Amino acid sequence: MEFLKSYASFLEEKLENYSFPNYPENLYQPLSYFLTLGGKRLRPIACLLGAKLFGAITEKALPAALAVELFHNFTLIHDDIMDQAPLRRGMKTVHEKWNANIAILSGDVLFVKAYQLLESYDAEHLKSLLTLFNKTAKEVCEGQQMDMDFENRKHVSEAEYIQMIRLKTSVLLGCALEMGAIVANASKENRSNLYEFGVNLGIAFQIQDDILDLLGVPEKVGKQVGGDVIANKKTLLTIETKLLANQEQLNELKKLEAEQNLDVKVNRTKEIVLAVQADKKCKEHMQHYYEKAIISLEKINCNSAKDELFQLSHFLIERDY
Amino acid sequence: MEFLKSYASFLEEKLENYSFPNYPENLYQPLSYFLTLGGKRLRPIACLLGAKLFGAITEKALPAALAVELFHNFTLIHDDIMDQAPLRRGMKTVHEKWNANIAILSGDVLFVKAYQLLESYDAEHLKSLLTLFNKTAKEVCEGQQMDMDFENRKHVSEAEYIQMIRLKTSVLLGCALEMGAIVANASKENRSNLYEFGVNLGIAFQIQDDILDLLGVPEKVGKQVGGDVIANKKTLLTIETKLLANQEQLNELKKLEAEQNLDVKVNRTKEIVLAVQADKKCKEHMQHYYEKAIISLEKINCNSAKDELFQLSHFLIERDY
Repeated sequence: MEFLKSYASFLEEKLENYSFPNYPENLYQPLSYFLTLGGKRLRPIACLLGAKLFGAITEKALPAALAVELFHNFTLIHDDIMDQAPLRRGMKTVHEKWNANIAILSGDVLFVKAYQLLESYDAEHLKSLLTLFNKTAKEVCEGQQMDMDFENRKHVSEAEYIQMIRLKTSVLLGCALEMGAIVANASKENRSNLYEFGVNLGIAFQIQDDILDLLGVPEKVGKQVGGDVIANKKTLLTIETKLLANQEQLNELKKLEAEQNLDVKVNRTKEIVLAVQADKKCKEHMQHYYEKAIISLEKINCNSAKDELFQLSHFLIERDY
Repeated sequence: MEFLKSYASFLEEKLENYSFPNYPENLYQPLSYFLTLGGKRLRPIACLLGAKLFGAITEKALPAALAVELFHNFTLIHDDIMDQAPLRRGMKTVHEKWNANIAILSGDVLFVKAYQLLESYDAEHLKSLLTLFNKTAKEVCEGQQMDMDFENRKHVSEAEYIQMIRLKTSVLLGCALEMGAIVANASKENRSNLYEFGVNLGIAFQIQDDILDLLGVPEKVGKQVGGDVIANKKTLLTIETKLLANQEQLNELKKLEAEQNLDVKVNRTKEIVLAVQADKKCKEHMQHYYEKAIISLEKINCNSAKDELFQLSHFLIERDY
């Protein structure tokens, strides 16, 4: 994945050089801090690839790509407050390092900064970009609210869960790709297929994330195994497990939610998940959305090779178990 | 001020009919609640007047006017969290009635909704509107941060304080007026004069608010007299008082900050304010910005009468003491 690395380091450099005003320090310093915490930079890369697909040079898509990344970071800063998360990529979150008020307000101004980046486009492109960006931002808020609501609910259906991840995380990948395509003057049909590719790939990726959280190899996943189970978080894996389990297993799962020994909690839950083959069911869902993504990608008419997007899909989905 | 009332009730009706999606309920219900708490609707009225000044019909400026009002309400929802305010216009704030997470997220989506309203304009108008709106939104965040920072500082200068109120409250009035002018195809020079009129009027209004908080007639001010003094809040009145006071008065003011008997605290502070004539100094500042506003207003070339804007200025500034 050499091209991903080179795009990522290109963006990292641009983000490092993206400077905020010096004053008020308490408003802008948290943003300089947060933006350099790293990350995969997947969304801005997608935006650059979307533009490349239709022959635009990277520099042309750069403001849109940075707008998407700034927006994503704005949502992370606010989500971290809501989740009371102490750490992000191993470093203190903004509300922990400063305080919640500063995290709210610097998040707000980061959102404005994302919109400001779009001003560099001519009026017609700006209008198309803004309309898509607004719709996506609204949906991301809706997805985050659904996620918070689900925590307080007993039952969440497969369809509701998938709708939540579609809004909370996947539409932004579709938006990033399509913004690149808009900048490159792609046709409406091509734009729409690229958007669908991104959204469905995003759903597949998120389902896989749910599976890996419990069933992944720790060294490869790069985070604590079973974090979702420990937090009693609803994921597609737990939803499918409950649908497939018999009464005895359901009773045990219920008990495990209160289990204090975390090794027992994680390992025993994992055994039940595997016994009822919930992982298999989840992989079927994942495969379904992955295939939908690939079908949309194949429909796109473009001069440039789609190789990089196929490689990106492969890279995102073929992570090890 | 019949025309103000008729504009206000027109806007009230439009805001009542402005409907949010039904789902997720916890995201949108707080917004329907908050938007109907009332208020002077001064900013959207300014936007409609700005358009009228250059011959545009009200309906044309309506989406911009509503965008300004939605943005203003977004800042109020987030400010209320930061200030831990329990009430807004006598009703529970969003974070009190729901919770802080819902207030953060519904505020965020309200901000997006403001941007979405601008989509109804053609590309060229949209670009001008967006650029001004972004700049203003950024400045409002900066002003709010300065206000929070000032709470933790010993000394704040006149100039710093006026810069803070300029950003936190006044630029939005200038922005609202200029957005109306943009919609009505006003010239750059007219737009700029109208903006300056709004910003300077906003500063004069805010200074007057500071004076009235301590020296106003309770029945006419409509809120507790001395609220700023009780909260030890820095205002232009307290800044000027400290500049004009002798050492003995400074010592007493310092002691009064910790005074538990609120009647003594408010009345004795008021006596010192009047003794050093800080009110006179503040009124001079107010008059300075009011005159700047009127000079800008006089410079504007337009077919329509400016009467309503002169009346608006008069209405805002000639409140009773």
